[in-house]
Amino acid sequence: MNLLIQNGTIVTMHNHRIIHQGSIAIENQTIIDVGKTCELKRKYGTGYEKVDAKGKVVTPGLINTHQHAAMSLLRGYADDLPLQEWLEKWIWPIEKNMTAHDIYVGALLTSIESIMSGTTTVNTMYHYTPRENEAKAFAQAGLRGVVGHVCFSWRKNEDKKALEQLAKNWHNKANGLIRVSVDPHAPYTVDPGYMKELKVTREELNSKYASEEVPIIWHMHVAETSDEPEKIRKAFKTELKAGIMEYLDSLGVLSKHVIAAHCVALTDRDIAIMKCRKVKASHNPISNLKLGSGISPVPKMLKEGVTVSLGTDSPCSNNTADMFETMKLTALLHKGADKNPTITPARQVLEMATIEGARALSWEREIGSVDVGKKADLIIIDFKKPHLCPLYNEISHLVYAAKSTDVNVVIINGKIVMENRQPTTINIEKVMEMAQKAKTGILERLARNVK
Amino acid sequence: MNLLIQNGTIVTMHNHRIIHQGSIAIENQTIIDVGKTCELKRKYGTGYEKVDAKGKVVTPGLINTHQHAAMSLLRGYADDLPLQEWLEKWIWPIEKNMTAHDIYVGALLTSIESIMSGTTTVNTMYHYTPRENEAKAFAQAGLRGVVGHVCFSWRKNEDKKALEQLAKNWHNKANGLIRVSVDPHAPYTVDPGYMKELKVTREELNSKYASEEVPIIWHMHVAETSDEPEKIRKAFKTELKAGIMEYLDSLGVLSKHVIAAHCVALTDRDIAIMKCRKVKASHNPISNLKLGSGISPVPKMLKEGVTVSLGTDSPCSNNTADMFETMKLTALLHKGADKNPTITPARQVLEMATIEGARALSWEREIGSVDVGKKADLIIIDFKKPHLCPLYNEISHLVYAAKSTDVNVVIINGKIVMENRQPTTINIEKVMEMAQKAKTGILERLARNVK
Repeated sequence: MNLLIQNGTIVTMHNHRIIHQGSIAIENQTIIDVGKTCELKRKYGTGYEKVDAKGKVVTPGLINTHQHAAMSLLRGYADDLPLQEWLEKWIWPIEKNMTAHDIYVGALLTSIESIMSGTTTVNTMYHYTPRENEAKAFAQAGLRGVVGHVCFSWRKNEDKKALEQLAKNWHNKANGLIRVSVDPHAPYTVDPGYMKELKVTREELNSKYASEEVPIIWHMHVAETSDEPEKIRKAFKTELKAGIMEYLDSLGVLSKHVIAAHCVALTDRDIAIMKCRKVKASHNPISNLKLGSGISPVPKMLKEGVTVSLGTDSPCSNNTADMFETMKLTALLHKGADKNPTITPARQVLEMATIEGARALSWEREIGSVDVGKKADLIIIDFKKPHLCPLYNEISHLVYAAKSTDVNVVIINGKIVMENRQPTTINIEKVMEMAQKAKTGILERLARNVK
Repeated sequence: MNLLIQNGTIVTMHNHRIIHQGSIAIENQTIIDVGKTCELKRKYGTGYEKVDAKGKVVTPGLINTHQHAAMSLLRGYADDLPLQEWLEKWIWPIEKNMTAHDIYVGALLTSIESIMSGTTTVNTMYHYTPRENEAKAFAQAGLRGVVGHVCFSWRKNEDKKALEQLAKNWHNKANGLIRVSVDPHAPYTVDPGYMKELKVTREELNSKYASEEVPIIWHMHVAETSDEPEKIRKAFKTELKAGIMEYLDSLGVLSKHVIAAHCVALTDRDIAIMKCRKVKASHNPISNLKLGSGISPVPKMLKEGVTVSLGTDSPCSNNTADMFETMKLTALLHKGADKNPTITPARQVLEMATIEGARALSWEREIGSVDVGKKADLIIIDFKKPHLCPLYNEISHLVYAAKSTDVNVVIINGKIVMENRQPTTINIEKVMEMAQKAKTGILERLARNVK
């Protein structure tokens, strides 16, 4: 289908270009022209479905670079607890009772929530099973995503099999919507030897199923809490004295295709290594606060030129998938923590949620900005709202005032997946029913297994 | 009008009582019964307009205890600047070009935004002028509020006149919706002598226009930034060595009717004085972060038993009036800052936004919880949303997952002021037009005056 978005204010996220009374022409999956409406409407007349964006602002779709999509089923199950108790007494026991179908349902719920809040790409880490999985849910919803399989030392064989199947079945599939990743859980749950093995696995999968332009990336929790070195020392009886990035670098696993989630407890040397190895960061401020992990040194990373993107983390440590919330909190948090209101300004935060997110997933050739030749992943935000009135500055409103529910239209890969706040790919009522039913099943199995 | 809300889950905010399949009966302005729907629907049949709350959660309306409602007109005008530059080069020069009518329009815009985001009471500090003002806007919108006049050393005579008129015209007016307050701007802009005079003024106004049960309170910025003692020393050539609350206590102005906004830079002794004098705090986390002021020691105040309520501050240092955002950030921020995920749990934060807010405004006899005899200030929140699915715990969802746009019905003083997200008291389109026009006028006057 060909589309012509017209009469909107287009925030391109390329060279600070903002086009008032702007238009975007889309053929099939791709943006073929961007400019003033008066020019484009002459060039793209018949054969283009018109999307009116009068009074609205068009931006690239938001990119959520750290999620565990299936965990939406555990949203609000347990909060306000010490981290270890939360994991050991609540999350891990209940997760054991989630079936492959539950994982699919949870990811479907997150897909809807993501689309409805203006997110067009999600990087998710969870357990892969061939028949029912997160990739299937994303593809069904028309959501773009990097879908990973999370690896632990205690299940190496299972992991290798899952990774092979995931790459074979899903890398660069669903019209290019889905890519896959190798996801070592964390430096304290993946032993040094296995970490190195997984590096080789990633290389092998890349040469079999991927290309330099469409790579299989590496997605891992890194330095989420300050006791991570201690955890590594305990788990692997090492004499670790360095920072976590320094440790990972000593294993030779860091590269430009590595995205590190959280990055809270980094040393200055860790940041220097990230810069040198071109490691990307996913900043997850809501989760880091909620779990009491602390505040990531984002201003330092940005100053050093490290790519910092944004993620919500799982809906049970957030408890939403709302990137507008994450943008606003990112813009606020570091100003207050560093007592400097000039840092992380609105424009930079919007970049973190769009073009920097694309870079973090090694996907910037196709997404992250409104540019000719890129995939049409766009959101149209209704600015005729009391809380967006009056209007001085679109960028300020997008970060500090807009709500995810102001997103009116979502286009992914050239396809309208939400129109006038109604998802077109998925029945909301049905998915909510499925989620509620899945929850009941999980709790029943949990009760049986506890007995 | 009499109303019967039925079939909802009622989060009363009284004794942790949650009623599933609950009902609330309202006669005129007042809640006359609360209980199970099966019981109430037999007692309150004809003569009660039914409001169905199936699949919805009913809570007390949220109470925003620190606002400058008129400043919505400056939302997004200037962000990401050093505090002094922001005030001196941007905010104060443009504010000089706001007319009394602009103040009314800005307050009307904030009233709509507040109602649409589930806030039923707003405590606002701004400049009072008799004909057009914030109180008029609130009354017109049907919003409950405490409306203050902000006092500065440089305009004592003008202030005294304004305070007298404000109290006479508006205290306990509009069916009891509006109360008024005496608002010394801050300890560094109101000299010690004037501070003491204003204390006497408040007492006089109370004896003329108010009662112990419906008091005229005192609303002031306190300890917003750590350089406040230095500002006071400079402004008034004092030898101040104590904390700000200690200083105010030495002037004899602290009492249970004082609400102190911000409370960022407090000493332990300041907190002890707040406890002793029963001073109430309005915590404004979004503004405190955005302006780089820092993080208020909320967990310490709570531990000492100080009443801590929540406020958004003005829409140009936030940039919304959204109390759901403020609740979520409050629940998150202190966990991360103190690296303790158990503090400020969801229930406590919801109390801060409801019953503690009522206490902070000395209004808890009438609002802040769903109780027989209290005014019917209620919000009905639609829980049939993907981001509120599945449901384990209503309180968790209200604080961590719900969005202000999930609020479906708002009732203030027994009157439905929003139904199915449509305000009933005010035409949204018209107010947005008025706001946009007011902005244009302000900018034109600013340009003329700069020449």
